[in-house]
Amino acid sequence: MRIVIPLFDRFTALDAVGPYEVLKFLPGAEILFVAARSGPVRDVPKWLAVTADATFAETDACDVLLVPGGPGARGLLENEELLTWIRRMHQGSTWTTSVCTGSLLLAAAGLLEGLTATTHWAAVDVLESFGATYTPERVVSQGKIVTAAGVSSGIDMALTLAARIADQTTAEAIQLAIEYDPQPPFDAGSPIKAPQAAKDLLVKGIR
Amino acid sequence: MRIVIPLFDRFTALDAVGPYEVLKFLPGAEILFVAARSGPVRDVPKWLAVTADATFAETDACDVLLVPGGPGARGLLENEELLTWIRRMHQGSTWTTSVCTGSLLLAAAGLLEGLTATTHWAAVDVLESFGATYTPERVVSQGKIVTAAGVSSGIDMALTLAARIADQTTAEAIQLAIEYDPQPPFDAGSPIKAPQAAKDLLVKGIR
Repeated sequence: MRIVIPLFDRFTALDAVGPYEVLKFLPGAEILFVAARSGPVRDVPKWLAVTADATFAETDACDVLLVPGGPGARGLLENEELLTWIRRMHQGSTWTTSVCTGSLLLAAAGLLEGLTATTHWAAVDVLESFGATYTPERVVSQGKIVTAAGVSSGIDMALTLAARIADQTTAEAIQLAIEYDPQPPFDAGSPIKAPQAAKDLLVKGIR
Repeated sequence: MRIVIPLFDRFTALDAVGPYEVLKFLPGAEILFVAARSGPVRDVPKWLAVTADATFAETDACDVLLVPGGPGARGLLENEELLTWIRRMHQGSTWTTSVCTGSLLLAAAGLLEGLTATTHWAAVDVLESFGATYTPERVVSQGKIVTAAGVSSGIDMALTLAARIADQTTAEAIQLAIEYDPQPPFDAGSPIKAPQAAKDLLVKGIR
């Protein structure tokens, strides 16, 4: 089972690495990071690089496509090379998935038109501009397409996917392996729950 | 504020990347990945590489040390070069932290003797062999040393740390930025909660 994760400049590493750490345990899985060029791909603010081991051109099929998001995603919404590649991968995939603003790339490729989907809460307008209907759920399944909400939601998405690809016991064993028993010290992980002061700070810029 | 994350062969990427995505938002933060040699450092099973941008020898001080774990950690418990470096970084640090079996490296460096600490649930015996007392909490603070449990717990640890380094509103704004409102589809993230069948499968080997 070939799982392919495309990278691009200014991606968000946790979008990719969260689900990676879940899916790598699946029986028969092989995971390949790919990009326009092979080699290190930098996030924002360039302190982290993940290596792409193959190029888009070299990668013509997969069983699971997992598209991460990040600040760089918005600049790729008219990148026909990438969108054509996403469409081609989706044609042969068993599962086509995204985390965070990765769903904007699926949407720009035309895959979410008329479907319900999710994305980072701050990117809803862009998602809907491509004909998808946003729902504020953490993991949204529509046939073989599974979209996840912002950044950290990829872990929940991947566990959901692991249960479908293998079975619930396998997903639970993976959850135990990564000791995923979340205990956030605060309850501010969604716009509905976050205190106004935290929202104001985020709008103003934390740094 | 200089945050340094050491990497080593066979590290677990989520141990490092989870807290990275939280701490990178902190005002004044700069994060540096380091290793014995600069360049890409591979995880298990070698499908993922994160770039180290400096060597241990080039890195002689930090404000926050964050030591990830992974299968490779156990092979480094007698690596005097690394342990000496950890001791040196700890001497000047404001915070010395670990995720998963990263705490075994802190323990092997002698930093946890007589302290309460945590680690991945499957590594308790090794942690205690160095004179630390394990407690099954997700984030354990002892003075300036903060240890976190297995893999995914680094996100909870980093949010706790963000509130101490900055303030609670900043930590909440970061939690909202990464949409960390966890909703695991199963409740199997600790040995106490996981069904016996999942534990048996993990012992047998998922793959």
